[in-house]
Amino acid sequence: MRQQWSITVSETYYTQAVHGPYEMFDAGDFTLSSGQVLRGLQIAYATHGTLSANKDNVILFPSWYSGTSKILEQAYIGEGRVLDPSKYFIILVNQIGNGLSNAPQNTPAPFNAASFPYISIEDDVRAQHLLLTKKFGLSKLALVLGGSMGAQQTYEWAVRFPDFVERAAPIAGTAKGTAHNKLLVETFKGAIMSDPRWNEGWYGDGSEVHRGLRRHARLFAASGFTPKLYNTEGWRSLGFTTPEDFLTGFVEGYFLPMDPNNLLTMLSKWHDGDVSRMTDGCLKTALSRITAQVSVIAIKEDAFFPLADIEAEQKLIPGSELNVISSDWGHLGLFGVDPGYNAAIDTHLKALLARKLAKQPKHATADA
Amino acid sequence: MRQQWSITVSETYYTQAVHGPYEMFDAGDFTLSSGQVLRGLQIAYATHGTLSANKDNVILFPSWYSGTSKILEQAYIGEGRVLDPSKYFIILVNQIGNGLSNAPQNTPAPFNAASFPYISIEDDVRAQHLLLTKKFGLSKLALVLGGSMGAQQTYEWAVRFPDFVERAAPIAGTAKGTAHNKLLVETFKGAIMSDPRWNEGWYGDGSEVHRGLRRHARLFAASGFTPKLYNTEGWRSLGFTTPEDFLTGFVEGYFLPMDPNNLLTMLSKWHDGDVSRMTDGCLKTALSRITAQVSVIAIKEDAFFPLADIEAEQKLIPGSELNVISSDWGHLGLFGVDPGYNAAIDTHLKALLARKLAKQPKHATADA
Repeated sequence: MRQQWSITVSETYYTQAVHGPYEMFDAGDFTLSSGQVLRGLQIAYATHGTLSANKDNVILFPSWYSGTSKILEQAYIGEGRVLDPSKYFIILVNQIGNGLSNAPQNTPAPFNAASFPYISIEDDVRAQHLLLTKKFGLSKLALVLGGSMGAQQTYEWAVRFPDFVERAAPIAGTAKGTAHNKLLVETFKGAIMSDPRWNEGWYGDGSEVHRGLRRHARLFAASGFTPKLYNTEGWRSLGFTTPEDFLTGFVEGYFLPMDPNNLLTMLSKWHDGDVSRMTDGCLKTALSRITAQVSVIAIKEDAFFPLADIEAEQKLIPGSELNVISSDWGHLGLFGVDPGYNAAIDTHLKALLARKLAKQPKHATADA
Repeated sequence: MRQQWSITVSETYYTQAVHGPYEMFDAGDFTLSSGQVLRGLQIAYATHGTLSANKDNVILFPSWYSGTSKILEQAYIGEGRVLDPSKYFIILVNQIGNGLSNAPQNTPAPFNAASFPYISIEDDVRAQHLLLTKKFGLSKLALVLGGSMGAQQTYEWAVRFPDFVERAAPIAGTAKGTAHNKLLVETFKGAIMSDPRWNEGWYGDGSEVHRGLRRHARLFAASGFTPKLYNTEGWRSLGFTTPEDFLTGFVEGYFLPMDPNNLLTMLSKWHDGDVSRMTDGCLKTALSRITAQVSVIAIKEDAFFPLADIEAEQKLIPGSELNVISSDWGHLGLFGVDPGYNAAIDTHLKALLARKLAKQPKHATADA
C-alpha cells in the first residue's frame, strides 16, 4: 500500500494494527528516579504461552531502542525456538518512550512532546516489577533477557532485584555505558535535534523532522552494521538492490514513521544506563549483587557495544559465562535477519535455561 | 591567546603564520577530470632538505583530509626520523580544497564557495605531477607516501604514473572506496550540510556554521578513535581532563577554524576516490599497473579503513607487502600523537626505502 506523504505517520504507526496485539498495564502515579511523577503510567506488553500453576515458567523480555514487542516476537519466539510459547510464559515489555508504552507522542498535554519527563532504565525496571507483581503475582523470573537497551534493562533487573531473577541473558549491551558508547548516542541525538523542524521538540507531526530522522538512520547504519556486510552486499538477502536502496529503503524506512521525541527519550535513557547508581558508582559492587545464572552474550563485530567492553563487565559477575556470536550484521544482528545469529542465540539460551540455580540467594531484594 | 568569538576565523587560520612556511606553484589553467577548467590553479607545497644532483632522493607526501603540510612536517619529518631532511628532499603537498592550495574559501568569485568546482583525487595527482615536472624537473620519486586521503593520492600516483614512482607507502587508506567508507563520508558531509547556517554553501564566515562543524567533529571522533582510547582515557596524554573536554577542546577545536565548503570539497573527493576509473572499473587491472615497491600500511583498529579492506587490495598488488600497526588512537594515529605508531611507521618506511627496485618498469606512463 502506497502511503501518502501528507499522512500523520505516527498515528498509524504506534497502533495495534502494526504492533499488536498487546495489553496495557496501568502502573498508576509512578515516581520516576528523577523525583517527578508520571501520572497514570501505561506499560504496553504482550504475552505468549501460559503461566504454569506454580508460576515457574516466566520469561521477561524488554524491548530495545526503537523496537516494540512485535519485533521481539518475530525475531525470537516460536515453536521450535528456545523461547517456545508451548513451554514458557513469555512477557514482552515495551520500554517507556517507545510509543506503545507512555511516550512523548502519546502522552496528553501538558506532559507531551518536549515536556515528557526524563526516563531512566531504572524507571523501566521498577515499572516492569510492578507489572509482574501486581498483574501476575509473580516473585520469580526463570529468565530475563534483552538485547542492547534490553540488555541494559536485563542488567538492571539482575542487580536491582537479585532474588527475583533466576537467570539472565544480557545480549549485546552493557551494565554501564562507556564514554565511547555515550559519544555514539550523542551523535544519534544530534542528528535529530539539529533538524530545524525538530524545533526543540515542538513540531507538529514527526514526519516534519524526516531529514533529521534520515540522518539519524544513516548514522545508525554506519556503526550498526559491519563493513563486511556492505562489502559482501549481505543486504541483498532482504531484497535490496544497491547500498543506497538498502539505506533508504530499509534503514530510513524503518525509522521514518517513528516519533523523534520518542527516540530522544530512549536515547537519553540509553546514554545514562548505569547499574552502579545503586552502589554509589561502584560497578564491581553492583555486579556482585547478582545471584542469577548469567549468560553474557556478545556479538563479536558489534561496534555499538564492543566485545572488549562486554567482556570486562562479564568478568565482574560471579559464576557468569561469556558467549560470543559472530555476525556480519554486527549489532543489528539482534533484529533476527541473520539465521546464524538466530541459531547461536537459541543454543546459548537453551544452555542457560538448563543450568541449575545456586541454592541460596546472596542478597535481599532492593526496594522497588 | 584568547580568540574573540566574532573573529573571521578562516582568514587567520589558512595562513603562513599558522601553516607555513610554504610556497605556491601556479599550475595554470588546469582542466579537471570533470572537464571544467580551474583557472590559475595554485598548489601550496613545502619542501624539506636538498635535491640531490641526480635527483634521486625525492619523497612526495600529499596531505590527508583537513590536514596541511604543517601537520605532515610535525608528525613525520625530522632528524632521527626516517623522513630526514639531511638525506631526502621531501615535498609536502597540500591537496586541492585544503585552504592553502585552491579551495572554496580562497578562490575569487565567481568560482568561490558553493561554486568551487568538483575536484577528484586524479586532479590532485595530475597537478602534483605538473609541480614535480615543471617546477623541479623530476622524472622519478624515490617514495610517495600518504595517510588516509594521502593514501588515496599515493595509490593514484602508483597506478597513473607507474614509471615515476619507485616506492609507495599508502597508509590507512584504500585505492577504491568501499560502500561502508562512502556511508561514513556521507554522514560527515551531512553533519555540516544540515546546519541551516551552511545555507547551501552561501554563508558569510565559516564560523557561522560552527554547530555543523561541531557535529562533524564528533562523528569524526566516534569512528576515528578507538573505544579503547576512551576507556583508557588515552586523551589524558594531550592534557585533557574529561571526555567532554577532549571532544570539545581537541576535536571540535581542531575543526572549528576550518571552512565548511573546503571540508566538503575534500569529503566529496574522499568519497569518490577510485583508481579503477583508469581501467574501466577493474580494480585488479588498475593495481596490476603498479611497478613500484609497495609497503601497504594499515592500522589494525582503524574504523575508517578497516584492515580487511586494505588487505584485500594489497593482495592485488604484485610484490607488495602488508604491514600492520596497532594503535589505540585508531585511524587518527596518523596525527602522530602515538609514539608507538610513530616508531612503527619509521620501521616500515626504513625497510621500504632499503628495498631494491625491480629492474624493468612494466608499463608506460599514462597520459598526464
